[in-house]
Amino acid sequence: MAFIQTDTFTLRGYETDAFGRLSIPALMNLMQESANRNAIDYKIGINDLAQQGYGWMLMRFRLRMHQYPRYGQTIRVVTYPTFVEKYFIYRDFQVLAEDGTLLADAASTWLVFSTAKRTMVPLPDFIRTLSPPQLTNTLPKLALKPHFQNNPFTPTHQNEVTVGWLSIDQNQHVNNVAYVAWLIESMDDKLLETRELAEIDLVYRTESHRGDRLLVQSVAETDDSLIHRIEQSSLPSGDSGKEVLVAHSRWRVPSS
Amino acid sequence: MAFIQTDTFTLRGYETDAFGRLSIPALMNLMQESANRNAIDYKIGINDLAQQGYGWMLMRFRLRMHQYPRYGQTIRVVTYPTFVEKYFIYRDFQVLAEDGTLLADAASTWLVFSTAKRTMVPLPDFIRTLSPPQLTNTLPKLALKPHFQNNPFTPTHQNEVTVGWLSIDQNQHVNNVAYVAWLIESMDDKLLETRELAEIDLVYRTESHRGDRLLVQSVAETDDSLIHRIEQSSLPSGDSGKEVLVAHSRWRVPSS
Repeated sequence: MAFIQTDTFTLRGYETDAFGRLSIPALMNLMQESANRNAIDYKIGINDLAQQGYGWMLMRFRLRMHQYPRYGQTIRVVTYPTFVEKYFIYRDFQVLAEDGTLLADAASTWLVFSTAKRTMVPLPDFIRTLSPPQLTNTLPKLALKPHFQNNPFTPTHQNEVTVGWLSIDQNQHVNNVAYVAWLIESMDDKLLETRELAEIDLVYRTESHRGDRLLVQSVAETDDSLIHRIEQSSLPSGDSGKEVLVAHSRWRVPSS
Repeated sequence: MAFIQTDTFTLRGYETDAFGRLSIPALMNLMQESANRNAIDYKIGINDLAQQGYGWMLMRFRLRMHQYPRYGQTIRVVTYPTFVEKYFIYRDFQVLAEDGTLLADAASTWLVFSTAKRTMVPLPDFIRTLSPPQLTNTLPKLALKPHFQNNPFTPTHQNEVTVGWLSIDQNQHVNNVAYVAWLIESMDDKLLETRELAEIDLVYRTESHRGDRLLVQSVAETDDSLIHRIEQSSLPSGDSGKEVLVAHSRWRVPSS
């Protein structure tokens, strides 16, 4: 059976940024909440996987913002799986205004890891055999390696963050959305004050944990786009420089 | 006319902490969202005040956690003003489970500042004359200076945070709840892993802004309580050491 998840959220004050627009981390939290609920319907929720020694890991998330909703507006988040392969499952999201205007959409790629080994495994049968809804408007599968992941990367900006307790989720590693908050916070004032995020494409490479020190790096790609990288700054094990996330962001002048 | 605000929230995954309990910053966000909505009914919302050149400032917030709700539970947040004085307005909160069990409560004290002068002013008449509901179970007015504000304070722990863009609200200063997140994140692992917050009492002293560097300090008061202080670490103006917040927290072994 196929399930399409639809959730309605009325935006709360603390979900908006200094300009009253829905904040990107708040939106991503809402989207992932809907994804969790959809997964529960498919019996592939976090707990369903945990019981069999598995966990979900987000591999790639590409979000496009078409229009920013504001405080008090009601949005509809729609999400469903689109394709299932040996190692990956793909999921789309749409964020709609009450009148049906498309405010944002996202494509995403997920994999499964073994909690004992902490390594990627082929999708277990109970996931592999699920039926995505048959829709005509699914987004194309995201490539496994986007262009910006292969480019040479020499950061022109870098700051360090230490992973705090509130960034840790029930999987005991850093929540996906925390990285996005660090990445946005590392942008310079002028960009944040004069532009809005039009698109962000995130490739998650490895997990990180409480107390880890991370280097948040970026370099301009064009006038309105940047490439980002987050790496381990140092670990007691000497395991340094490990890539945690690479990302690409595109910015634009707000329309209003 | 008197208004009692009641909101129902079903807890989302990202509102819980590493142990699956509702996180304190998430709860405070929900409580303040309800307070905003109640203020709108009284025509003393953020926008009502802004139009007349005023803003709200939270002066003190004392939260007691009786029992932590978890992911998926539905909670009811009830809030209303309790007393109005020349300079201060007091507001109570109750957080209830679906069966009416009291999960948390809070007392709070608010003042009004002039946006032009950035200084406290007497409550304008349209606030001064409002009618709180006539209830028998209002919490006692909080004292203007709690005991821990007068004690000599020599921190045994200190860390620095830089105010990022996502901590700034539409008033262009740091959101009340951001301080609480920094304070909790500054606690040591052992405390966070073995205890839960039973009570937190916050005294807000002065505002802070994007880019400010803050020192988050604490010292044990007893085996299960701490005193906290957040101060400006340095400002371009040379305005250093200014007290931003003082607080007191009490911790306990979780019952389950």
